[in-house]
Amino acid sequence: MGKSMIRAGIIGATGYAGGELVRLLMGHRDVEIKWYGSRSYIDKKYYEVYQNFFQIVDDVCMDDNMEELAEQVDVIFTATPQGLCASLVSDEILSKVKIVDLSADFRIKDVSVYEKWYGIEHKSPQYLQEAVYGLCEINREGIKKARLTANPGCYTTCSILTAYPLVKEGLIDADTLIIDAKSGTSGAGRGAKTANLYCEVNENIKAYGVAGHRHTPEIEEQLGYAAGRPLTLNFTPHLVPMNRGILVTEYASLRPCADAGAKLPEYEQIKAVYDQYYGKEKFIRVLDQGVCPETKWVEGSNYVDINFVIDHRTGRIIMMGALDNLVKGAAGQAVQNMNLMFGLPESEGLDLVPMFP
Amino acid sequence: MGKSMIRAGIIGATGYAGGELVRLLMGHRDVEIKWYGSRSYIDKKYYEVYQNFFQIVDDVCMDDNMEELAEQVDVIFTATPQGLCASLVSDEILSKVKIVDLSADFRIKDVSVYEKWYGIEHKSPQYLQEAVYGLCEINREGIKKARLTANPGCYTTCSILTAYPLVKEGLIDADTLIIDAKSGTSGAGRGAKTANLYCEVNENIKAYGVAGHRHTPEIEEQLGYAAGRPLTLNFTPHLVPMNRGILVTEYASLRPCADAGAKLPEYEQIKAVYDQYYGKEKFIRVLDQGVCPETKWVEGSNYVDINFVIDHRTGRIIMMGALDNLVKGAAGQAVQNMNLMFGLPESEGLDLVPMFP
Amino acid sequence: MGKSMIRAGIIGATGYAGGELVRLLMGHRDVEIKWYGSRSYIDKKYYEVYQNFFQIVDDVCMDDNMEELAEQVDVIFTATPQGLCASLVSDEILSKVKIVDLSADFRIKDVSVYEKWYGIEHKSPQYLQEAVYGLCEINREGIKKARLTANPGCYTTCSILTAYPLVKEGLIDADTLIIDAKSGTSGAGRGAKTANLYCEVNENIKAYGVAGHRHTPEIEEQLGYAAGRPLTLNFTPHLVPMNRGILVTEYASLRPCADAGAKLPEYEQIKAVYDQYYGKEKFIRVLDQGVCPETKWVEGSNYVDINFVIDHRTGRIIMMGALDNLVKGAAGQAVQNMNLMFGLPESEGLDLVPMFP
Amino acid sequence: MGKSMIRAGIIGATGYAGGELVRLLMGHRDVEIKWYGSRSYIDKKYYEVYQNFFQIVDDVCMDDNMEELAEQVDVIFTATPQGLCASLVSDEILSKVKIVDLSADFRIKDVSVYEKWYGIEHKSPQYLQEAVYGLCEINREGIKKARLTANPGCYTTCSILTAYPLVKEGLIDADTLIIDAKSGTSGAGRGAKTANLYCEVNENIKAYGVAGHRHTPEIEEQLGYAAGRPLTLNFTPHLVPMNRGILVTEYASLRPCADAGAKLPEYEQIKAVYDQYYGKEKFIRVLDQGVCPETKWVEGSNYVDINFVIDHRTGRIIMMGALDNLVKGAAGQAVQNMNLMFGLPESEGLDLVPMFP
Repeated sequence: MGKSMIRAGIIGATGYAGGELVRLLMGHRDVEIKWYGSRSYIDKKYYEVYQNFFQIVDDVCMDDNMEELAEQVDVIFTATPQGLCASLVSDEILSKVKIVDLSADFRIKDVSVYEKWYGIEHKSPQYLQEAVYGLCEINREGIKKARLTANPGCYTTCSILTAYPLVKEGLIDADTLIIDAKSGTSGAGRGAKTANLYCEVNENIKAYGVAGHRHTPEIEEQLGYAAGRPLTLNFTPHLVPMNRGILVTEYASLRPCADAGAKLPEYEQIKAVYDQYYGKEKFIRVLDQGVCPETKWVEGSNYVDINFVIDHRTGRIIMMGALDNLVKGAAGQAVQNMNLMFGLPESEGLDLVPMFP
Repeated sequence: MGKSMIRAGIIGATGYAGGELVRLLMGHRDVEIKWYGSRSYIDKKYYEVYQNFFQIVDDVCMDDNMEELAEQVDVIFTATPQGLCASLVSDEILSKVKIVDLSADFRIKDVSVYEKWYGIEHKSPQYLQEAVYGLCEINREGIKKARLTANPGCYTTCSILTAYPLVKEGLIDADTLIIDAKSGTSGAGRGAKTANLYCEVNENIKAYGVAGHRHTPEIEEQLGYAAGRPLTLNFTPHLVPMNRGILVTEYASLRPCADAGAKLPEYEQIKAVYDQYYGKEKFIRVLDQGVCPETKWVEGSNYVDINFVIDHRTGRIIMMGALDNLVKGAAGQAVQNMNLMFGLPESEGLDLVPMFP
Repeated sequence: MGKSMIRAGIIGATGYAGGELVRLLMGHRDVEIKWYGSRSYIDKKYYEVYQNFFQIVDDVCMDDNMEELAEQVDVIFTATPQGLCASLVSDEILSKVKIVDLSADFRIKDVSVYEKWYGIEHKSPQYLQEAVYGLCEINREGIKKARLTANPGCYTTCSILTAYPLVKEGLIDADTLIIDAKSGTSGAGRGAKTANLYCEVNENIKAYGVAGHRHTPEIEEQLGYAAGRPLTLNFTPHLVPMNRGILVTEYASLRPCADAGAKLPEYEQIKAVYDQYYGKEKFIRVLDQGVCPETKWVEGSNYVDINFVIDHRTGRIIMMGALDNLVKGAAGQAVQNMNLMFGLPESEGLDLVPMFP
Repeated sequence: MGKSMIRAGIIGATGYAGGELVRLLMGHRDVEIKWYGSRSYIDKKYYEVYQNFFQIVDDVCMDDNMEELAEQVDVIFTATPQGLCASLVSDEILSKVKIVDLSADFRIKDVSVYEKWYGIEHKSPQYLQEAVYGLCEINREGIKKARLTANPGCYTTCSILTAYPLVKEGLIDADTLIIDAKSGTSGAGRGAKTANLYCEVNENIKAYGVAGHRHTPEIEEQLGYAAGRPLTLNFTPHLVPMNRGILVTEYASLRPCADAGAKLPEYEQIKAVYDQYYGKEKFIRVLDQGVCPETKWVEGSNYVDINFVIDHRTGRIIMMGALDNLVKGAAGQAVQNMNLMFGLPESEGLDLVPMFP
């Protein structure tokens, strides 16, 4: 007898992350999508919203009904604005389905931090402790046992993974960490805002949310766990005229090697640490010396490309990371989390070769 | 014992079409690439040329040695400039391997037409009759038996498929056909020319090769077969600031219906003809009424999206077609041809959902 | 005593065409802007809407009050949606100020054609006969005497000027005229619509308004005057991923020369006709043989670049024209019209060198 | 009798900076260009290289002959690769003409630093002390008296001006300064390199020259003068898919106020310092609180837009600056320098309103 398919439901299927989730799950041999949730397009054919799915998806969009969904599917993806998942989840629902939440609702353990940065009341803080932060390469074992996974943000995934081994090993002074991040425009979502019009974004670059972007506390919390103590850092996002991709450039002071006459570590030492953490990770590629990550080299795939340069003049290390914000930064990582939660091979449905050019 | 893999060699693997072929064949379960040919990068790691293949392809680039290749592989793809394939092919080689030629060498049956439009001598006209024009939806049966397939050009595939049913059925006056085509810049190749620099192409659109582009005779020949007589038509390509995608807008006068009081045909009649030809074709999608093809809706996939509008004021029909020039316009169609030539399911390795945005 | 300044008011100053008008008038030594009208941003500093004017314009946005405006200024520019200008204009207003209307309200002489294509009632058809169609190179003398000028559309200006001499001289069969037009995205305006978001437009090209775009009857009317009889033609606009620029590619059958054994005209004959019409026109540049117009070469300027290729194989001529849709296609032509209406040198304030890259 | 015109010669007139210089000088009422130098296009019409100048510039390109030039012009602009100006300049030439050198040859006072970072021998170090670093807002008086001005680099101008007042006033700890810079692609020049092809740059962002970019020592030297001591800092450039524009995001630790209980300075204090330095500078705009600089808001103009945010959580200040790399970052600043050197109003020919969109 054949293996039964995992039935999936998506709440928020017509946002960019939702659309990418559909694209990825179409190529996943163990999953079938049973519910295309989209409050804005109820009863409309899904392919009429995204014509790329013409003759591929014939379903119509459904309302956001998590109770009904829990009866019909095995896993729910919530690719919705903050607050929705927290307002719908319940013991009964969690007893029936697993949830991968792509919003920020369960990423931050401290409810007061969440409420301060997001400016909304958290409707179900009782699940914060249970929820597992779904950064697969860091929390793999926890995710395997989770009912509720908090899928990390796009900036966050890239920012954390790029610095994680060096913070964890104490090779950098974590208080000096500065993250300068650059994102394609799909990260801003599909809402019809003047600021996201073609003519406003094209031929332009700007910083935004300076010293106040919501992904900051998420990065600080996770890197704080690595450092073993609370951290504050600077995170500055920029909007880049391209559809997809996040590049982070991270700066930190290297700690002198205690065992080497207080000299700075050399390339080989740092490289060895990255390899130790990521050498066996399929989706993290530590590049060859001298090669800078480019977002185009990971586009459409679940890879994160990472590299670094040591500046002996200033005693700092410059770390760089690149990913596709809709794949490893959203839908791809969500599928990776689902694979872990259901005991499937972690890369199932994610063997995507980056598309160039 | 399992089915043996098809061994493939690519000559010209470091051009954009070559790179796309590698991407597609990586996802093809019956093929393994044995030879990454690239005269410019001999002995260099393939991933150093295209970093998207880092940790995916570990091979080095090889010289263009078709005789040696013929010993080692089952199929050769030539993604090279005009003239190379014709200068290398021989009876002995064709006795050992099948060839899918992505250049123009074997597309045009009349050697004098080839030599006039391409300005070079044809080195092996003796194979012109044997070579099958690899437009799968039109020449499927011939391709299945072919040793040498001439993979159509990107503009050509889009231009022909968009008009084919109406020319074949005599619904339009083929002498009035005007094709206005728009292409992304990857069609210009990876050669380092000033005209293809970012700053020259970006924020710009222009026509080029007006009344003299080399794809013209190829379109005329194939649509001439459909019409049952020689044709001349206007084909005008334009360079668009985007990486991938071809859109054609085709204009022709509709023929009045003989059996309907010489009135023009209505939407339903034309739609029925398109459906008759393409209704069962996986890779050709005739869109719903009123929906115009957009290149973005087919990006990264092997689809051609087609639609039309009748203008009763002028008696003309406007046909539109969109494809990804590197997939259905090059590498995807090459794989589709290979599948047919080796008796595999035609869409093997080509179940690619278009990527949006 | 010095010459007094022309006081200008703009209704719709915060649209893209309005903003361009402000940019151009800032560099016009005989004009000062007295009124920045913008219903959406009343009482907001103009530079807060368009930060490029920071420390250049310090005024606040005002309501759309044409009566009040007529007291304060010498010329009113209406850069507003269709219907507004027609609903506000009156004898009293026209007795006090001159108006350059950038909307379509007074472009089409036949009110029923206007109402059919625009789907709204015309509120002041009594001014249709008085209004002068503001295509400066064609209607110069009329514009000089006008109180109310109908500034042509962006597609229209480019489409008409490109074909005008050949239609006027009867060198082409006007019934065969097909206009395939490509526009940058600023032509779609600054309204917050999903279809104009960066991620929807970028890396994409599509036709729209096929066989039904509102600029069609405007082109037909004006070219009909040139031909001396009513015309119908095909006009197909396309949306291109760039901010500015319109390129038209126009196809028509050449008429055989009566006096030359019914042969087709040669390059020199056609060129002579273009030179006869445009040789002394500052803003129309007929390019050298073999050079195709590119939108980038006119960006930011008031130029229209025009050229053509004869295809003896098909007997057709391919005409091409390029302009900046916000300058010669909107604000630049509006200033040119104002200059004519006020007896100023026609190019005053318009000596703009195109910006490249 | 009227004022005589300044005769200008450009060596390197067909690079992007050279072309921009021609655009700006066309609009300068006191200058006429006498020499369009371009070794690659000798005897070719200048407008054939840059069609935007069709019917505007009718001259042909000339060889690079500085001695001959010195006879014919009053000012020479060298918009050439490093090394050329230094190899041509001489006492005799400097006795006849003034030179604005847009290359790096005379920017760095320490010849060993120049030779180390640029990897070439300096051919005329004897002029290093005489040459004035042409950052107009900082070195205005020196420039007025200079025969030889070293026009600053594009990254450099933006990086220095953004931090200058705070370094000069000791408000930040200059050793903590980190500059993350993002540039449009015209900064890479017009050379035909694969890395600068449209398809390689588009939809992509990457860092390059990490910890080793040649503009680093230039920034360090100039900010070192402001600090009153030598500095080292991190400067990381990134390539952004747009034609023009540089954005810098600079991070530094604020120094606690000695006279305020060691508290960090507040917004108003920092703003007052910026206003003190730049309040009367026409080309430097310190934006309103909360407004982040965007490259698009300065495109085509000579403005630098600057702003900052204090992050009390980390004790750092984030400074941001934006300019057009071809104007204030190259040709515009060169004209500004020329104006100062010839006693003209500093903004003559530079009253350019930024173009949006």
